[in-house]
Amino acid sequence: MEQTKKFLLPENELPEKWYNIIPDLPNKPKPMLHPGTKQPLKPEDLYPIFAESLAQQELNTTDSWIEIPDEVREKYKIYRPTPLVRARNLEKALDTPAHIYFKNESVSPVGSHKLNSALAQAYFCKKQGITNITTETGAGQWGTALSFAAKTFGLELAVYMVKISYEQKPYRRSLMQTWGAQVIPSPSMSTKAGRKILTEHPSYQGSLGTAISEAIELAMETPNCRYTLGSVLNHVSLHQTVIGLEAEKQMEMAGEYPDMVIACFGGGSNFSGISFPFIRHNIKDGKKTRFISAEPASCPKLTRGVFQYDFGDEAGYTPLIPMFTLGHNFAPAHIHAGGLRYHGAGTIVSQLMKDKMMEAVDIQQLDSFKAGVLFAQTEGIVPAPESAHAIAATINEALKAKEEGTKKVILFNLSGHGLVDMTAYDQYLAGDLTNYSLSDAEIQSNVNQLEKII
Amino acid sequence: MEQTKKFLLPENELPEKWYNIIPDLPNKPKPMLHPGTKQPLKPEDLYPIFAESLAQQELNTTDSWIEIPDEVREKYKIYRPTPLVRARNLEKALDTPAHIYFKNESVSPVGSHKLNSALAQAYFCKKQGITNITTETGAGQWGTALSFAAKTFGLELAVYMVKISYEQKPYRRSLMQTWGAQVIPSPSMSTKAGRKILTEHPSYQGSLGTAISEAIELAMETPNCRYTLGSVLNHVSLHQTVIGLEAEKQMEMAGEYPDMVIACFGGGSNFSGISFPFIRHNIKDGKKTRFISAEPASCPKLTRGVFQYDFGDEAGYTPLIPMFTLGHNFAPAHIHAGGLRYHGAGTIVSQLMKDKMMEAVDIQQLDSFKAGVLFAQTEGIVPAPESAHAIAATINEALKAKEEGTKKVILFNLSGHGLVDMTAYDQYLAGDLTNYSLSDAEIQSNVNQLEKII
Repeated sequence: MEQTKKFLLPENELPEKWYNIIPDLPNKPKPMLHPGTKQPLKPEDLYPIFAESLAQQELNTTDSWIEIPDEVREKYKIYRPTPLVRARNLEKALDTPAHIYFKNESVSPVGSHKLNSALAQAYFCKKQGITNITTETGAGQWGTALSFAAKTFGLELAVYMVKISYEQKPYRRSLMQTWGAQVIPSPSMSTKAGRKILTEHPSYQGSLGTAISEAIELAMETPNCRYTLGSVLNHVSLHQTVIGLEAEKQMEMAGEYPDMVIACFGGGSNFSGISFPFIRHNIKDGKKTRFISAEPASCPKLTRGVFQYDFGDEAGYTPLIPMFTLGHNFAPAHIHAGGLRYHGAGTIVSQLMKDKMMEAVDIQQLDSFKAGVLFAQTEGIVPAPESAHAIAATINEALKAKEEGTKKVILFNLSGHGLVDMTAYDQYLAGDLTNYSLSDAEIQSNVNQLEKII
Repeated sequence: MEQTKKFLLPENELPEKWYNIIPDLPNKPKPMLHPGTKQPLKPEDLYPIFAESLAQQELNTTDSWIEIPDEVREKYKIYRPTPLVRARNLEKALDTPAHIYFKNESVSPVGSHKLNSALAQAYFCKKQGITNITTETGAGQWGTALSFAAKTFGLELAVYMVKISYEQKPYRRSLMQTWGAQVIPSPSMSTKAGRKILTEHPSYQGSLGTAISEAIELAMETPNCRYTLGSVLNHVSLHQTVIGLEAEKQMEMAGEYPDMVIACFGGGSNFSGISFPFIRHNIKDGKKTRFISAEPASCPKLTRGVFQYDFGDEAGYTPLIPMFTLGHNFAPAHIHAGGLRYHGAGTIVSQLMKDKMMEAVDIQQLDSFKAGVLFAQTEGIVPAPESAHAIAATINEALKAKEEGTKKVILFNLSGHGLVDMTAYDQYLAGDLTNYSLSDAEIQSNVNQLEKII
C-alpha cells in the first residue's frame, strides 16, 4: 500500500491572520521596561527604532488576531503554505511506534523560517515610507532572509555581520549580496560603537551585541531608516505563527493531533511559530499537548537560567525584558548552531515556561549532529545545525515511545536546511567537534551580575 | 485580487509511468555501436557495466510507457510532485505580456532534478542484488543525488570527483559524505587509469573523462559492482520525464498550454525531462510548441557542433553514440555552470535537433549570471549557474514577446538551486567573471579529429 508522506495546503488556505497568544494567556507577561525610566514601555518609545506598526504589534495585549496584509500574503506564496511531512523513513530507522511529522520551513528560498517575519517587517517599514533598514546577523539566517525581503519591497538594507561569521561563512555573505544588501563586517569603522571597539581591540572578532549596537546606531543616524530584529520580540513571534496555523490544518488532513510539539530554541522565533497556535488549544479546548523546546547544552537559558529582567543585547541598549536568561554578558561557546547562541528567551515564552505550560530540554552538540546525519540519510534533507537540535529531541521522545510501546504523535519544526552550513558537518564527520559542559559556577557568576540591573 | 502562484499536484497524481519518446519519433535515432565491433549495441553488451534493467531501458525502442516501481515512487514522494510556479514577480520586473511558468526541481533535498534518475538507478541496481556502485561527478550535482539515493536503497557508493572540484567545492564533497558516500579526488591512486596519469603528470587537476575511466574501472574490478551515469543516456532521459509529465497536468491546472518549453543543456537530462512529454503532443496532437535548449556559448554542441558518431567520454571507452558533438577531446572553458561543460548531446535529442523538432540557443556566462541575479531578486530562489542559462533564454523570449506585444506562455525548467555554488555569484558580483568566445577554427580542429573515428 502506498502511504501519503506530504500534506499540502492549497494557496487559498494560507492563513489570513497571525495569532497573538497574549490575550489568551492565563498570566500575562510582565511589561517590558524603558531602560532609562524603568517605566512600562509605550509604543511611542519604540517609534524611533522600529516601524510604528511593528511597535504597536509588539505591545498589543488585546487583539488575538492580526490581519496579514495582502501584499505580505502575496510574497508568502513564493514558498507558503509549506509542506507538513510524515517522516516515515526516520520512523522506520528508529523502529518506533511514534508517528513523526515535521513542518518543512526549509523550502523557503532563503532556507529557513526567518523569511516569515522578514517579509512582514520589510512590508510595514515600506508602508510607513521608510526607505532604509538595518539589522545584524550572526549565523546569517536572519540576514539572508531580510536581504530578500528588503529587495522585494524596494528597501535599502545594511547588515552588520559578526566579523568571524563574515569570514567563516562566505556563502551567507554572497547570498545577502546577491539579493542586493550591503554587508558590513562588525565591528566596523562605519559607527561610533564600531570605531571605539576597533580602536581599543584592533583584532576583535565581533559579537552579536556589538553588531546590534552598530545596526541601531546606523538606523538612528540615517534619515528615514529603522532597525529590524529577527527573534526574541513579540512581533516576530506573531509573524511566525503562520507556521503553526498551517500545521494545525495539515495535522487535521493527516487525521491526527500532536501529543508533542518540538522546536529548537535560540531567541524563540521558530518555537513560538509552531507552538502558539497549538498552545491555544491546551488553554481553550482542554488539549494536553506537551511543548518541548530544544536548546543547546552550551546555552541553556530555559533549563538552567533564571527568570528576571534583563537586556536583550550585550551592550544594554534595548528595553528591559522579563525573561529566562543566562545574563546578557553570557558568552556562549562557539557551537555551529549559531542561531541558538543567545542568552535569553522572549517574554511570552518565558512566561509560558514559568507557568509550566511548556518544557525545555538541552541537547549536546554531538547528539545534534548525529541526529542531523540520521535525518539526512533517511529523509534526504540536511538540516540546519539549529534544527538538528529539534530532531535530536524528537528522536529521544520517539525512542521513549518505543520503550513504552505507546503510539505518540510528534510534530517538530524543521526550521531550516543546512546546505550553507556544510563546514559544520564536515568537521563533525572528521571528528573535530566536541560537546560543551557548563558549570553551575559559570552560570551563577553571570546571573549574579544581573541582580544589580534593577 | 489575489493570484495563484503555485500549482501543486497531490501525491496520488505522481506519474505511475515514465515516458519513452523513441516509439513516437518520426525518425528513429541511429543505433549506438559497440566500440570494438562497430555493430549495433545489444543490452547484453552493457550488462557488465550497468544494471540489466537499466541496460534494457537504454535500448528499448518499442515501449512508450515504462512503469515506475512503487519503491521508487515512495522515495519520489520525499520531494515530488514538485511545484509548478507562475513567475509573476519576474514578469512584472520585465514588464512583459508573456506568462512565465517554471517547474521547480530545486525543491529536491539534493537541490536538483538529478535525484529523479539517481533513485531509479540505485533501485534497479539493488533489485538485481548489486551491493556497490560507482560514478563520477564534476560540478557535484549528480554525485550528491546518487549519494542520497545509494544510502536510501542500502548500496555502497564510490564517487570519483574531479580533483579541481574536490578542492574548490568542499560543500559538495561534505554533502556526499554526509549521505555516506566515499568521495575520491580523481585522478587517484586507487585505479590503474588514475595511477598512470598521476605518474606521468603528478599535478594533474583531473577531468570528467579521467573520472569516468576510474569509476568504470573500479566497477569492473569490484565484485557485485556496477557503474552509473547521470546524463546523456536514454534511460536517464526516461527517468527525468517525470518532470514533464507532472508539468503537463499542472499547466492544465493553470488553464494554459506552453508556446515554448525551455531548459538548460549539458548532456540533456533536464531538457529531455521537461520536453519529451510535451513533444509527444507536437507529434501526435498537432501542437506547435517550440522547444528551446539553452547551452553555454563556451560549449555550443547543438548550435555549432556536428552530427556524427562520437564517444561519450574523453578516453573513448563508451559505445559510439550518434550525437551532436564538438568532439570528445573538446576541452570547454572553466565556466561556473560545470554541469553544462560536456562535449556532446544524447542520441534522442540529437535526432530531434537534426529533424528540426527543437531549437538551441547559446548563452554567454555574464548573461546567465545577470539573469540568475534578477531571478533571485524577484522570485527569491538563487538558481544554479546551469539553470540560469534557461532563465536567460526565457528572459530573451519574454522580452521579444513584449516587443511584439504578444502574450506568449513560456515554461522553463528550474533544474536546481545555487546555494552550494555561491562562490560563482561572489565572483560575478565582484566583476571577476568573463564571457568566452570560441573561434570556428577551434571547433573545426576538434571536429576534424572525429572524421577518423569511423
